[in-house]
Formats: sequence, C-alpha cells, structure tokens
Amino acid sequence: MTEEGQGNGKHRNPVPAVDFLISKDDNSKILLVRRKNDPFKGMLSIPGGFINEGEIAEDAMRREAKEETSLVVEPIAILGVYSDPKRDPRMHTISVTFITRIVQGNEEARDDAAALQWINVEDELDRLIQSKQIAFDHSKILNDYKKWMKAAQGSVESTSNLTFWSTKKEQTEEEEESLQIKPTEG
Amino acid sequence: MTEEGQGNGKHRNPVPAVDFLISKDDNSKILLVRRKNDPFKGMLSIPGGFINEGEIAEDAMRREAKEETSLVVEPIAILGVYSDPKRDPRMHTISVTFITRIVQGNEEARDDAAALQWINVEDELDRLIQSKQIAFDHSKILNDYKKWMKAAQGSVESTSNLTFWSTKKEQTEEEEESLQIKPTEG
Repeated sequence: MTEEGQGNGKHRNPVPAVDFLISKDDNSKILLVRRKNDPFKGMLSIPGGFINEGEIAEDAMRREAKEETSLVVEPIAILGVYSDPKRDPRMHTISVTFITRIVQGNEEARDDAAALQWINVEDELDRLIQSKQIAFDHSKILNDYKKWMKAAQGSVESTSNLTFWSTKKEQTEEEEESLQIKPTEG
Repeated sequence: MTEEGQGNGKHRNPVPAVDFLISKDDNSKILLVRRKNDPFKGMLSIPGGFINEGEIAEDAMRREAKEETSLVVEPIAILGVYSDPKRDPRMHTISVTFITRIVQGNEEARDDAAALQWINVEDELDRLIQSKQIAFDHSKILNDYKKWMKAAQGSVESTSNLTFWSTKKEQTEEEEESLQIKPTEG
C-alpha cells in the first residue's frame, strides 16, 4: 500500500459517493429523479450523493434518500461499484450503488430533484436510453440492475458473483465456465 | 445531492481504497499479508491499498496485487463495501472489497508485505481471530467471505443479495423472508 498523496490537503483520490435503486413491485420498478440542476439538468438519474467524512456509506444512502425523495429506505444488496474517471464531468467520483427497498414514507421530490418518476425497467429502460434521457453512467447501472433483477427472479441462473463494476465485461460461455464456483471435493 | 465540501482542498470525504481476497483451491484458501509496517505491524491483513485519482477501482486492485504479491489477479465479484470511520486508525477510509482469482504468477511478498500466508478459511480463521492476529476490520471481512464461500459452494441457499457492508446485520428468518426476491406474476 503506497500512501503518497493521502491527506495532504489536495484531492489525489476519487470522491466516494452513493447511488441507490429504490425498487417496488417485486423489483420491476425503479424510482428516478428528474434533475433540477446541472450537470445533466432536466435528464433522469438514479438518486445519489456524496459520502461525508465520518459517515458510513449506508447512512449516506439513507440521508440522501430522505433528502431527495423523503422516503425511508433500507439496503437489500450492493449492485456494484462504478469508478470510471469520466462518469461525472465535475470530478472523479466512485459510486457505491445500493439496491434498496422502501421501509416508510411516500415519495416526494425534494432538494435537487425537480420531479420523481417510476420506470418499469423491463418495458421503459431501452427507450429512455435510446432517447438519451439518462444522466451520468446510469444507463450502464440500470442495465446491470436489469441483469440482477432477472437473476433474482430466476429467469437466468442465479450466481453468487452477481456484482458489477465499471469495466466488467460480458463473459463468453467458456470464460464463465472457468470463473464458475465449483463445490469443494470431500 | 449536496456538494458542500467537495473539492475545496480539505478532506471532507472518506478516502476510497480497495481490499481483495485472492482465492485458490475452490475458494477455500485466501492469501493474507504479514504486515511490515504500522498500523498493525506484524499482524495479518488482506492485501489492499488506496485508489488514485483517475484510476478505476479494479485497476487499483490489480496494481496493488502486483505490488504486494507479484500476482496478476482478476475480479470475480465484489464481496462488499466497508466504511466504518474507525476501520483504519489513520483516517476514514472506505474499502471496496473484491474477490479475485489468480490469472498469472507466483506469490512473492513485496512492498509493505513482510511475508505472505495462505489460510484455510474454514479451518484456520476462527483461531486467528481469537488470537487477535487479524488487522483492521478484516475479521469481519473474512467472516463475510466465509458466508459468501458457503453460498457459492451451495451449502446454504444462494441468493442474489449476497453482498455485505459495515452495518449489515444477520437477518432473522422473518426479515429474510420479507427481503426475499419473489418472481413477478404473469
């Protein structure tokens, strides 16, 4: 572990953030935010925000969910970690993306959310992506969520390695085989 | 998303890092590092390091694996994200923890690794934790890995929500049921 550049008062590391998929109707619907501000003003994004020093990632997620949607949510799983330096035009951010469920409240657009919109991932996502309405790298995240949702619903084989990252590629069948977890003998 | 404190030249966010489990023998063995330096000098830890600005998390993981163990590794999955402010006594870090497999090379201790040691998770982990030989919050990470490994081996039911975070609790059966993903109708 090299420590150069840590804590020297200059940003030498990506800024950690959370994004989160608020799901309902057996994960088929996801809540998106119509953005009030730049970047990507007017486009749709997954709700999210930065993690403060001293704050646990899942608490940042709960705080931002409350601030932007007024919903109380709880994490179900981590979908993936997205850290492409170009994912946010403002700075290098690294997003921990949670899948969550609503525990309490009714959705109401607040903070930098101009409006909220439930989308049916199976039916509406492709059209929204094609018409370039999705901000940041959230098209990738939402497509990864679609894969997760299908695995969770049992329509593809559920594996225990169903998390995603910026450069994760679709595996060929052969590669998939070599990565497959095999039971230990004996 | 509030932006106060971002990019103002002062650390107002946790510092993102990667840790990684290098596995062999059908995931039953994990490579640990005997620490050459403080904190936790002389204790065992999972290899890891900070993510540099401009660097994708999985590239930071590959770089650190090469630097500390001289192995070429590839990610299989993200085990979890660990962000307890007290996990590292030096500063607030947030760790993206990957599960990896070896693609090339032979392990050799380098950089701040005094030595490397394969441990059998099932047989040796409890003893190492009890004798307080594991650094940072890596006891938690290794226990979470043990759950992941058992799910992967099919000895407990494999679910698609098998990722972990700092405050994730063991669910009661009833809570587990309510979180369970159910197939959509029709």
